[in-house]
Amino acid sequence: MSIDTEIIISRDDTICAVSTPPGCGGIAVIRVCGPETLEICKKVWRGKDIRESAPRTALYGKVIDSEGDTLDECIATYFPGPGSFTGQDTVEFAVHGSKYIQLELIKSLINAGARTAGPGEFTSRAFMAGKIDLLKVEAIADLIASTSRENHRLAIGQLKGNLSNAVEKLHDKLLNLATLLELELDFSEEDVEFANREELRATALEILKLIENLKQSYSTASAIKNGIPVVITGQPNVGKSTLLNALAQDDKAIVSSIPGTTRDIIEEVIDIQGIEYRLIDTAGIRESVDTIEKIGIAKALDAVAKARVVLWLIDGTSDYTSLPDCPLAPESEAVVIPVITKSLVAPEENIKNIEWLLGENYKGLKAIRISAEEGSGIDELKEALANAANIRGIDSNQGVLTTLRQYETMALAGASVREAINALDQNITPDLIAEHIRQTLHHLAETTGQISSQTILNNLFSRFCIGK
Amino acid sequence: MSIDTEIIISRDDTICAVSTPPGCGGIAVIRVCGPETLEICKKVWRGKDIRESAPRTALYGKVIDSEGDTLDECIATYFPGPGSFTGQDTVEFAVHGSKYIQLELIKSLINAGARTAGPGEFTSRAFMAGKIDLLKVEAIADLIASTSRENHRLAIGQLKGNLSNAVEKLHDKLLNLATLLELELDFSEEDVEFANREELRATALEILKLIENLKQSYSTASAIKNGIPVVITGQPNVGKSTLLNALAQDDKAIVSSIPGTTRDIIEEVIDIQGIEYRLIDTAGIRESVDTIEKIGIAKALDAVAKARVVLWLIDGTSDYTSLPDCPLAPESEAVVIPVITKSLVAPEENIKNIEWLLGENYKGLKAIRISAEEGSGIDELKEALANAANIRGIDSNQGVLTTLRQYETMALAGASVREAINALDQNITPDLIAEHIRQTLHHLAETTGQISSQTILNNLFSRFCIGK
Repeated sequence: MSIDTEIIISRDDTICAVSTPPGCGGIAVIRVCGPETLEICKKVWRGKDIRESAPRTALYGKVIDSEGDTLDECIATYFPGPGSFTGQDTVEFAVHGSKYIQLELIKSLINAGARTAGPGEFTSRAFMAGKIDLLKVEAIADLIASTSRENHRLAIGQLKGNLSNAVEKLHDKLLNLATLLELELDFSEEDVEFANREELRATALEILKLIENLKQSYSTASAIKNGIPVVITGQPNVGKSTLLNALAQDDKAIVSSIPGTTRDIIEEVIDIQGIEYRLIDTAGIRESVDTIEKIGIAKALDAVAKARVVLWLIDGTSDYTSLPDCPLAPESEAVVIPVITKSLVAPEENIKNIEWLLGENYKGLKAIRISAEEGSGIDELKEALANAANIRGIDSNQGVLTTLRQYETMALAGASVREAINALDQNITPDLIAEHIRQTLHHLAETTGQISSQTILNNLFSRFCIGK
Repeated sequence: MSIDTEIIISRDDTICAVSTPPGCGGIAVIRVCGPETLEICKKVWRGKDIRESAPRTALYGKVIDSEGDTLDECIATYFPGPGSFTGQDTVEFAVHGSKYIQLELIKSLINAGARTAGPGEFTSRAFMAGKIDLLKVEAIADLIASTSRENHRLAIGQLKGNLSNAVEKLHDKLLNLATLLELELDFSEEDVEFANREELRATALEILKLIENLKQSYSTASAIKNGIPVVITGQPNVGKSTLLNALAQDDKAIVSSIPGTTRDIIEEVIDIQGIEYRLIDTAGIRESVDTIEKIGIAKALDAVAKARVVLWLIDGTSDYTSLPDCPLAPESEAVVIPVITKSLVAPEENIKNIEWLLGENYKGLKAIRISAEEGSGIDELKEALANAANIRGIDSNQGVLTTLRQYETMALAGASVREAINALDQNITPDLIAEHIRQTLHHLAETTGQISSQTILNNLFSRFCIGK
C-alpha cells in the first residue's frame, strides 16, 4: 500500500489546500480541514478568535507567514463539524489571489501542523463521514469538469441523487425479499415458504429491466460527457476546413483546463444546443503523423472507430459519373450525413446529379446542401447533427449511469439478478436463490459505495483536483 | 470619453464578476456589488432569504441558470453596505469551480439585471466610497501581483498605510502653516505676519528632505517590484548557460500569470533571499533576433541598459595575456562582478593570472571563483549579487514610492516646495509663497488620491484583474 493510499483513508490529521483555480486572481480561497483545524488556524490568524465567533460568519483579520510577519489582510470563515461539508471542522481563508500569498499561507499552515491535501481529499472526507455517497462524489467531479449545458445537467441530476434514489429503492425492495428468503433457510427443515416466489420473481424482473435501462443510458451519458465523436471526411479540397471554421465560429466549446480534458489539435470541439461534438478531421490524422504525439493520433483513430456521426462531404461543383466511396466500414453503426459543399456556387444540375446518385446507391440518405463560406445550410446541418446524434431522449430524473465504474457494477448486478430469475424459474432451493440475490445486493451497494474497495476509492479521488 | 471611462466612475449600477483566478478548480467565487445586489441575487438564489439572514454568514442553497434550472449547490455570503469592502451591498457566491458554472452564473446575474465588472471595479468602488486611498488601491494591485518576499513586503507596507501616513502628516503640517499665510493675505493691508517664517521654512525643508528620501526609495522599490536586472556577459563557451542553470536550480521564482508579468524567454527570473533577479543573457539577445518578438528584445535591451549588476564571466581555463574588454559602456552605473568560471578544473596559475590582470586593469574589482557544474562558489556569487544590488537598506515603515505615478506627483511636490523655500529666502510677498505652498499641497493630495483625474484613475484600475 503506497503512501497516497494511506493519505486518502485517514481522517485523523488536518489538511490544507488552495481550493480555487491555480494562478493569480482577485481572491483565492485556502481551506483547512481536520481535527486540529482550530489550533492550527489560531497560529496563523490575527483577529477575533475563530473558536469564539459565530459559526459560518465571515471574520476580517490578518494571516501571518511562517516567520510571523503579516502576510495578508483577509476573511476567515469557520464551518464547525459535524455540520460542515466534510463533517470535520473546516476554516476557509479568502486572501488576495497572489501566487506568493497562496504559497506562503500554505507554508505557514504546514508550519503550524497541517499537511497539504491530496486530490479530492476534502470530498473523500465527506464520503467517509457519510455525508455523500459514491455516486454524489462522482457527480461533484463531473460537475467541476462540466463544460456544456448537457454534461452539466447530467452532473446536477446525479448530485440531486436521482441515481442514488433509484438504486437505493431497488436495493431496499430486494433486501426485504431476501430477508424472507433467509428466514426460510433458518427454518429449512420445516419446508415453509415465507417469500412469495411470484412477488420475488416480479421484483427481480423489475430490477433487471431497470438495470438494462440504466446500462443503455451509459453510452448516451458517456457521449454527452466526452463529446459526440463526429468524423468529417471527403476528398481533398472538398471544403472540410471551411466547414470546421463555419461550425466552430459561434459555438466554440468551453475547454476545461483540468488534466485529461484537453482536446487534441486534430479535433475541434463545438457546442450545439448545449451538447459538445468532437469534430475529427480524418485528413488531419493522416497529415499529422510526424508532428503530433502518437497518443493523440491513437485517441483520434479510436474516436473515428466509435464515431456516432459521419459528415461525408461531396463537392457540389464536381460533375460526378459515380460517387466516391462512402468511407466507413460496413460494421460501423455511425449515422452518415452526406453534405454537398459549395452549393451556392455549384451548378444546380451538378447538385441534382449528386442527389440522384445518392438515391441510387445509398437509399434513404438525404444530403444537406451547404455553402460554408457564406454560412448557408449551416443551421440545417447542425439540426441534422443533433438528430443523428440522437441524445435528446435522456431523462436524468430516472437516473443515468455516468461512469464506467457505475456501468460495471450495474452490469454485475444485472448478471446476478438474471441468475436469480433463472434459479426461480427452475425452482431451485432457496439457499441458491438467496446467494444470487445476495450477490445482486452486493453489486447494488457497490454502485452507491456502501461497499467499496480502496482501489476504487483511490481511482475515483485521483480524478479530482487538489483543494476539493 | 469612452464607455470604459464611464463605467469606472459610476457606482449606480450593480456589477458582477468571477473574483477567483480564471480556469477550473474546486471552488470559484462570484461577486455581486451595487445598489440592486439583493434584488438581483434574489432572482438567481434558491435558499434562505439573503436579506433576512444574518450579515456575513455563509448560507447554503442553490443558484439557478437564466432558464430557471438548478445550476449548482453553493454558499452565499452577504456583506451589507456601507460596512463592506466596497461600501455597497455585496454578495459572494462560492460555487463549484467548473468553467461552465462560472459562465452560466454570470449570464444568470446579467439576466437578473447586473452587468459584468471592469478591471479593478470593485476596488474602485471602495476608493470612491472613501474606504481606501489611492496608495492603498495601488498596494492591492501590487499585493495581487506579488511574487517574492520583498515585493510582497513592499505591498503589505503600503497596504498598512505607511506611505499614506507619511504623506498625510506632511500635508496636515503644511496646511496649518498655509492657513496662517492665507490669513495674512486677508489682512494684507495691515502688514502683519501670522505665519512664522522660520517655522514655515523649517517645515518646508523637512518636507523637501522627506520627498527626496521618498524619491530615492523609488528606484529601489521599482527594482524590487520588477526584479533586479542582472546582465550575464562573456565570450562564447565561458559557461553562461551552466551558471544560469546552477542559479535557477533551487531558486526558480514564482512566475505570475497575470498579463504583463510574463517574462521573455531570454530572461531567467531567480529568487535570492526573497528578492527577484532577472538574469539577462546577452548572447540570447543576439541569437534570437529572428525567433522572438521584437518587443521582447527591446525590453531585454532596455534591461541591459538599466542593469544594476553585470556578471562578467571569464574562462578560468584560458591562459590570457590580456583580458577581453569589460562589456559595459562607461556611463553605466552598474556594478561589475568578474566571475572566473570552471575554477575547479582550471589550472591555479591561470586563475591567479586572471586575478592579477584584473587588479592591473580594473582596480578594486574582486573576482569570484565558481565551478557551476559542481555548484562551487554559487553561494558566494549570490551573496555578491545581493551586495551589489544593494537593496537591503529599504525600510518600508518609512513609506516607499512604489509606482511611477507616486514618483511623479511627489517630484512635482518637491519642485513646488523648493520654489516655496526660494521665495521665503528671497523674502517675496506672502501671496507668492502661498501659491507655491498651495501647489505643494495639491501634489501631496494627488499622491494620496484626494485629488485625482479620471485619466489617472483609468490607468490605475486597468492594471487590475477583473473581479477585484
